[in-house]
Amino acid sequence: MINTLYLPELREMLSANNADGLRDFCEAIHPSRAAEFMAGLSASESWQVIQHGVMEDRVDIFSFFGKDKQYEILENEPLASVAAMVAELAPDDRVDLLQELDDDRLAELLKLLPVEERRDFQRLSQYPEGTAGAVMTTEIAKLSESLTIREALNEIGRQSETYETIYYLYIVDSEDHLRGLVSARQLLAGMKQPETLLHEVMETNLVSVDVLDDQEDVAKQVAKMNLLAIPVVDNQHKLLGIITHDDVIDVVQEEATEDAHRIGAVDPLDESYLRTSVFTLTWKRGIWLAILFFFALLTAIAIREYETEIEKWVWLALFIPLIISSGGNSGSQSATLIITALSRGHISLSDWLRVVFRELVMGLLLGAGLAAMGLAASIFFVPPSETFISASLFVVPLTLLLVVLCGTLTGSILPLLFEKLGWDPAMMSTPFVAGIVDILGILIYFKVATIFIA
Amino acid sequence: MINTLYLPELREMLSANNADGLRDFCEAIHPSRAAEFMAGLSASESWQVIQHGVMEDRVDIFSFFGKDKQYEILENEPLASVAAMVAELAPDDRVDLLQELDDDRLAELLKLLPVEERRDFQRLSQYPEGTAGAVMTTEIAKLSESLTIREALNEIGRQSETYETIYYLYIVDSEDHLRGLVSARQLLAGMKQPETLLHEVMETNLVSVDVLDDQEDVAKQVAKMNLLAIPVVDNQHKLLGIITHDDVIDVVQEEATEDAHRIGAVDPLDESYLRTSVFTLTWKRGIWLAILFFFALLTAIAIREYETEIEKWVWLALFIPLIISSGGNSGSQSATLIITALSRGHISLSDWLRVVFRELVMGLLLGAGLAAMGLAASIFFVPPSETFISASLFVVPLTLLLVVLCGTLTGSILPLLFEKLGWDPAMMSTPFVAGIVDILGILIYFKVATIFIA
Repeated sequence: MINTLYLPELREMLSANNADGLRDFCEAIHPSRAAEFMAGLSASESWQVIQHGVMEDRVDIFSFFGKDKQYEILENEPLASVAAMVAELAPDDRVDLLQELDDDRLAELLKLLPVEERRDFQRLSQYPEGTAGAVMTTEIAKLSESLTIREALNEIGRQSETYETIYYLYIVDSEDHLRGLVSARQLLAGMKQPETLLHEVMETNLVSVDVLDDQEDVAKQVAKMNLLAIPVVDNQHKLLGIITHDDVIDVVQEEATEDAHRIGAVDPLDESYLRTSVFTLTWKRGIWLAILFFFALLTAIAIREYETEIEKWVWLALFIPLIISSGGNSGSQSATLIITALSRGHISLSDWLRVVFRELVMGLLLGAGLAAMGLAASIFFVPPSETFISASLFVVPLTLLLVVLCGTLTGSILPLLFEKLGWDPAMMSTPFVAGIVDILGILIYFKVATIFIA
Repeated sequence: MINTLYLPELREMLSANNADGLRDFCEAIHPSRAAEFMAGLSASESWQVIQHGVMEDRVDIFSFFGKDKQYEILENEPLASVAAMVAELAPDDRVDLLQELDDDRLAELLKLLPVEERRDFQRLSQYPEGTAGAVMTTEIAKLSESLTIREALNEIGRQSETYETIYYLYIVDSEDHLRGLVSARQLLAGMKQPETLLHEVMETNLVSVDVLDDQEDVAKQVAKMNLLAIPVVDNQHKLLGIITHDDVIDVVQEEATEDAHRIGAVDPLDESYLRTSVFTLTWKRGIWLAILFFFALLTAIAIREYETEIEKWVWLALFIPLIISSGGNSGSQSATLIITALSRGHISLSDWLRVVFRELVMGLLLGAGLAAMGLAASIFFVPPSETFISASLFVVPLTLLLVVLCGTLTGSILPLLFEKLGWDPAMMSTPFVAGIVDILGILIYFKVATIFIA
């Protein structure tokens, strides 16, 4: 939602070139709020506003702009002032942003960056998307294990502005091998013995991740252990960077969205909905729709086998959508429950028997409930002129019971099977489950029908 | 997945009553790992193991056990030792756990808690589930604004073990009104002027939330602003507690799961899948299945209007599942995309025209693609003996185009409409969208059929 509270004032200050007012605005308001208030301004207007703030406020506010606005600024505003700001961004955010620029603009921008930031970009951008390396930050507090607590406190007091977090301090040897960790909390508590060596107080039993680990696994680990940050090392255990709690929240949100997209049969998007072109989106949806189309064609083949039955008892056709949607919906429910429980760690493969048994019981209960409603519907819809009236009344209820049971079992077993095979259970998207249950539903329906009324 | 690496050793140490070995185990391994290694042990065995650790390790490891194991321990192990540990848990976790106990056991346990923890429980448990009050922690570092930096550092050094986080220090007046915030980073950087008053360095422009605010809104705010913690105040701006980054990750995961469940047409669960009884689950699924059943009944009514057409052209029945599933799937895709984009803040209501236009274009492209496949299928399935052969070939393709278009528009407009009305867009679950598109699909199908071949 666009917050229009400050818009008129901002526009007025811009047109009056009221430098003091704009600097105050950049300084006094929390950067995320300031960015929100500017949501109604164009990228170029927003850029003009933050030019009046000091560099620190400028960077803070910019990092809360929407991605679209950030790219527009990077692409179009004067190169020198853009580069000055880009140099101050957090390294991981910088990589994310710059990688989206077109190649020419990127090359020009990189030329204007200080050499350290340029190297940093080149190093970070070599890690594939989705790995720990691609989300880590390199601005970390590294301390030598031979320092005392007093020296460490002084060092941090001096440097605290340049680190992304000072709450965990990483202890390395002369070759940057990760040796241990001291928390700011420990340092503060240790002020009573300021001459103690870090070496003596540091935690050595720490969890680190490899730079090529999957970001989702890393996020799960940080979330599970309630860490503020996790160190990222290479295969020689050299400390390369850290991943902090706010990056973890981003990853958790990103992965939840990916799962939701897979469950909804859309190939996960690399960017947000509005930034993804209509053609990319069409493709990411189209492949799944096409696959599901072929599944649905199988139902047509199944129904064709029973054309003579339909000709005789046309009322059978009335219930086709009802039966396949009941099976599909109960299958989708099971798949959603199992996929989310797996991804949250609430169930594991070893629970499979218990899960399947529960789904069996639920299938019977839900199926019985729908069967009762189906019986009522049959009394209403099945023509009383039928010769086998009493038997045909039970075709739809019995089918519903079997189809719902089939849905809960398919919807639970398939995601578990995918997990077992090491594939992403969310790939077993609910429309996919529904597609399979559709075919089974049609086969069950006509089988039951021919047995009962033929 | 159950990690069985240490299981035999643990069992052996337990049966040999090897106190040293078990204490080492509790001490040397990260508590989350230790809890993992114990996943294969029963609740009672796990409790025996951690009894050998010091209280701090005991609490840490216990808090990483699965909910089931935690409850089993709380219900069944000796009251006195359980109470001693419960007294040491973080206040917010304590409330979550104790609220699940049966009333008698809870009353007995509360009697054994120190008076402060008991009051704390009673205060926290009064806030409704899902509010900031229910997830906040009350163990916070509160400092008076009249302290100097030196005094503040000493105070924290002394107290650091009792606080949940020392990285943000909250400054209050004599009546606990929240006045400002000093970060540990600022304190460390300020050690050069140790006599400065906190009052002079504190940040006064801070974001707080009301104790009755929705936890989802709070989580979004913390995630957006990259905060480590956010203060929780009452309506007089008195500081009651804080919500920390790890609680936020929990809330983000919980809310993503809730959204996924709503999208999958399951009423969100209050507890994890395995802890929810089969009957509760059946109910939470059953109400939605019943609602969707009535939607599907409408398709039966629609089809009945065309019974004579089906009798004449039985092949029309073959394509019923294909058509409704194509419409349903494209509608589900749109709904999933729009719901996740809304909840991530990637689109807002003001984008509605752009969103609908994009979905219109995608509907036309995807519809055209499926229509081409539908034409091929028609050549194969539509009997060549038909009199109006050339026209009837186009019934299915044209229907598919219209139905897919109808799906993308319904799937995008309904969630936007729900958002506009202030309802949860995820309520517009994809099966619900599919249900609506099913009916429209049937109506379109037979309308097109009667126009083309009648």
